[in-house]
Amino acid sequence: MKKPITKVGLFGKYQHDTVGEHVARLARFLRARGLTILIDENTARVLPEAVAPSRPLDAIGREIDLGIVIGGDGTLLHVARVLSAAGVPIIGVNQGRLGFLTDIPLAEMEREIGRILDGDYQAEQRLLLAAEIMRKGRIAHTARAFNDVIISKGELARLIEWETYIGGEFVNSARGDGIIVASPTGSTAYAMSAGGPILQPTLPALALVPICPHTLSNRPIVVSSDSIIEIVMIGLAGSHAHVTFDGQLHHTLEDNDRIYVRRADHPVELIHPSGRSHYDTLREKLHWGAKY
Amino acid sequence: MKKPITKVGLFGKYQHDTVGEHVARLARFLRARGLTILIDENTARVLPEAVAPSRPLDAIGREIDLGIVIGGDGTLLHVARVLSAAGVPIIGVNQGRLGFLTDIPLAEMEREIGRILDGDYQAEQRLLLAAEIMRKGRIAHTARAFNDVIISKGELARLIEWETYIGGEFVNSARGDGIIVASPTGSTAYAMSAGGPILQPTLPALALVPICPHTLSNRPIVVSSDSIIEIVMIGLAGSHAHVTFDGQLHHTLEDNDRIYVRRADHPVELIHPSGRSHYDTLREKLHWGAKY
Amino acid sequence: MKKPITKVGLFGKYQHDTVGEHVARLARFLRARGLTILIDENTARVLPEAVAPSRPLDAIGREIDLGIVIGGDGTLLHVARVLSAAGVPIIGVNQGRLGFLTDIPLAEMEREIGRILDGDYQAEQRLLLAAEIMRKGRIAHTARAFNDVIISKGELARLIEWETYIGGEFVNSARGDGIIVASPTGSTAYAMSAGGPILQPTLPALALVPICPHTLSNRPIVVSSDSIIEIVMIGLAGSHAHVTFDGQLHHTLEDNDRIYVRRADHPVELIHPSGRSHYDTLREKLHWGAKY
Amino acid sequence: MKKPITKVGLFGKYQHDTVGEHVARLARFLRARGLTILIDENTARVLPEAVAPSRPLDAIGREIDLGIVIGGDGTLLHVARVLSAAGVPIIGVNQGRLGFLTDIPLAEMEREIGRILDGDYQAEQRLLLAAEIMRKGRIAHTARAFNDVIISKGELARLIEWETYIGGEFVNSARGDGIIVASPTGSTAYAMSAGGPILQPTLPALALVPICPHTLSNRPIVVSSDSIIEIVMIGLAGSHAHVTFDGQLHHTLEDNDRIYVRRADHPVELIHPSGRSHYDTLREKLHWGAKY
Repeated sequence: MKKPITKVGLFGKYQHDTVGEHVARLARFLRARGLTILIDENTARVLPEAVAPSRPLDAIGREIDLGIVIGGDGTLLHVARVLSAAGVPIIGVNQGRLGFLTDIPLAEMEREIGRILDGDYQAEQRLLLAAEIMRKGRIAHTARAFNDVIISKGELARLIEWETYIGGEFVNSARGDGIIVASPTGSTAYAMSAGGPILQPTLPALALVPICPHTLSNRPIVVSSDSIIEIVMIGLAGSHAHVTFDGQLHHTLEDNDRIYVRRADHPVELIHPSGRSHYDTLREKLHWGAKY
Repeated sequence: MKKPITKVGLFGKYQHDTVGEHVARLARFLRARGLTILIDENTARVLPEAVAPSRPLDAIGREIDLGIVIGGDGTLLHVARVLSAAGVPIIGVNQGRLGFLTDIPLAEMEREIGRILDGDYQAEQRLLLAAEIMRKGRIAHTARAFNDVIISKGELARLIEWETYIGGEFVNSARGDGIIVASPTGSTAYAMSAGGPILQPTLPALALVPICPHTLSNRPIVVSSDSIIEIVMIGLAGSHAHVTFDGQLHHTLEDNDRIYVRRADHPVELIHPSGRSHYDTLREKLHWGAKY
Repeated sequence: MKKPITKVGLFGKYQHDTVGEHVARLARFLRARGLTILIDENTARVLPEAVAPSRPLDAIGREIDLGIVIGGDGTLLHVARVLSAAGVPIIGVNQGRLGFLTDIPLAEMEREIGRILDGDYQAEQRLLLAAEIMRKGRIAHTARAFNDVIISKGELARLIEWETYIGGEFVNSARGDGIIVASPTGSTAYAMSAGGPILQPTLPALALVPICPHTLSNRPIVVSSDSIIEIVMIGLAGSHAHVTFDGQLHHTLEDNDRIYVRRADHPVELIHPSGRSHYDTLREKLHWGAKY
Repeated sequence: MKKPITKVGLFGKYQHDTVGEHVARLARFLRARGLTILIDENTARVLPEAVAPSRPLDAIGREIDLGIVIGGDGTLLHVARVLSAAGVPIIGVNQGRLGFLTDIPLAEMEREIGRILDGDYQAEQRLLLAAEIMRKGRIAHTARAFNDVIISKGELARLIEWETYIGGEFVNSARGDGIIVASPTGSTAYAMSAGGPILQPTLPALALVPICPHTLSNRPIVVSSDSIIEIVMIGLAGSHAHVTFDGQLHHTLEDNDRIYVRRADHPVELIHPSGRSHYDTLREKLHWGAKY
């Protein structure tokens, strides 16, 4: 966090019943510390009372020095994609299960956020993905993703075919259910279910993970995040395919579409309480062995 | 290749019958180009005639500007570990099957090496691994590896147990046949058979790949090559374990031994003909799909 | 083949341009051997000339003693599902690439089919799957599958949840992209891409293979083909799911739907030339090592 | 259990300190029910007092109607290999963690064994493996295994090569760390760590699971337990290999050795409390999801 924190934005998982009271509670806690609060507009609607002014998500980034998300990893992904351009650091509080990104439990929210505001924290730069879809020589769509850009078959298609290029070099033609381009953050999300490796969160790398590949030797590939990944849709024929960003935004693909994925200009800054290790979270979520 | 090339060292897979004539042929070709030749001492023994002075492998690095290996990837691994400290760039010629490292076919040896000497080449810095084994507070052994440092159970042991730390942070306690710390170069060697991902050859990263892990969620992890990996042997009890470097050098492990693996100070510089892509080699060796 | 062969049904991959001439050629070859020929109605439409009477696929089974498919495995799957009830044995001829089921190359069609008709063949009983979808206590749909019954998420869904029961015993609740119930025949189709094992073609077993499972320890399970598999859709919420039979027939699933899969009453009888081993096909298709 | 139970053999994990008191406690419980007790000779040595006559393991089978093992799965494997020839059913009590085979917790030992003796149990026939090693045309070694026959490289070998035949049909030549032939019981043991599928415990099948195979398309194969598996060691050269039975018995392999594995003549009869499902054990040990 480069700037002193004076204005904080609050974001809740607004589809969730009880998030309103937690956001309100946090707003009171922060205001008691002399901070100014802004509430995300959608979240504001589920608050029991108006505790602070609200702003649309795409406008709030310019006004705040810190964002705090109460919800699950999905909520944080959504907020992070929008706030990253403004360079706003983000804290994640989980409402239920421990998240990979929302690593502060609700029960310890005030204590941990208090510690962070007192300067006892660790900041982590996580890379964000920027994708462009080229169709017939023109940019048909652009999007950001924090976890992953997923290219996958339409639901009744048998399989799709694509060519992969890394840094302009041809890698292979492949067939299967699709391919994932994952950030280190996304390596523990869908890419992991598809058989991908775990990447250290701050590793300057991208993982390409095929989904149910037709060729058994088609393995996950990890490349520098300076690389531009290019996926070319071939032979879709009558069938169709999709590209999905963090599993939240979707775009339909046509034959010969070219999807470019690269590191976005601005990373996401995640703020964690000091002394918490990413491996603690992995151990807990993956039922790994504890220390002897 | 920083220095102009005047002295070239030649290294053959000396256990192999016919390598002598190829080395002799290459020596004549290079001498005709005005270069001075030194032959690795072991290789010199299998030459049909004395074509050039010979030197022991561990002394030759100080005298040469370029090393050329004729053999398989195993021969190049062995030579590279020794030459890296002297900063000597290496060219690999394969005697039989295409290698990941020895990517020039014997039949094209003169043409391709000629092109390289004419300046038409690409140089690639590949990281080397440096390992230290600490026993009872003292360094019991040190070694280098180009592909991998493999910690594995003794042959009649059922499984071994170890703790992993990355950059001093505890990762997990695990049981299984062992664990591989692989360089990007080694990611297509044993680590791939054990289920690890393919790393771009120049990625500044290390892969930790468990071998037949007892816990099914124990997945390959890819970390920055700035990280120090620490593996602690626990609960070997009556059983024993080994550490192997590139599958060529071995050391027996005892309970409580700590194995540290980090990037070595000096990388290996590999020289390839221009226009050759690492993905060409992968496609050929893994039977991947060609371009449409 | 229990009955003497007098009437043969011919089935072509009718979407394919050139299949007509091959079917016509085969019809002439068989008629010259004194056999009566019937042509599948859809195939008859693409024949250059009317070489024999035609019948609808669902009626032809009652009239013929043997079916011959010219096309790919997909064509044979389609024909086999329909012919199995009538107990008609099937021969598969591939038009292009070697198939797992269509193992006679077009170039050797007359010779190999001649040998088979001379009695030089091996017959193989392959189990077929029968599926029932129960909705609100009633049978909503039934279908057969030769390869697999695939339950999978709708295309924009993130993941689906289901419970699995085997022989009435609860196995687990799982989340992921879906689950495949594969016959031994289907074990080398989609189930293989999803990480399933290869089953011997005549093994009396079914494989349950999760697709990109959320829990990493969710592994393929192989059970007796006497078992009834039950998959219960849970927590679809707003999302939706599909069940697919051999990747060719589809049905939409709702929350609380129960999908039952069991071995169909009638197997499919495949006829192969003598001396051909299933492992020959596997070796060729999977690039396995040849004999030393 | 075909015969009425009058004589019970008790087997403890005799390397374990406290097993003696549990065996003694169980002996008193059974004698109070009017049963005659025999103690395995090795177990008898660690008993606090002589509670019953003892017999060598290889002789006890002829005298008893039921065997009860207190220990872990390893102890039961060892006892089952020996008792199977005599057709003695076996109950397993685990001293610590739930076992796949020893599924009765120590704390519930008397209650559950009481229920079983009252006739409230389920019996399960599990196949045992019989292996023969042929060297230069003669049987060099024979052994049984309940879990698996594991053929693996010697510890400093890089990899080994072998040919596989199923029912006399050539499957492939392969290279890697080795290959496992697992019974359904063994499918959740080492074969699972190597990537093999879970087999239903009573499925009449064997799983062939390669260990770190050099060819990525080398997949687990499941075949009928009527099949004879043949593994031929090729190209060991200077290197060596081992065959291991249940990870407990070992034999060194030489070049051209042929290892035959088939189903043993006698299965193992395991006795479980009624109402216990194998899937309960799997769920607990693999951290699978519970019922919704």
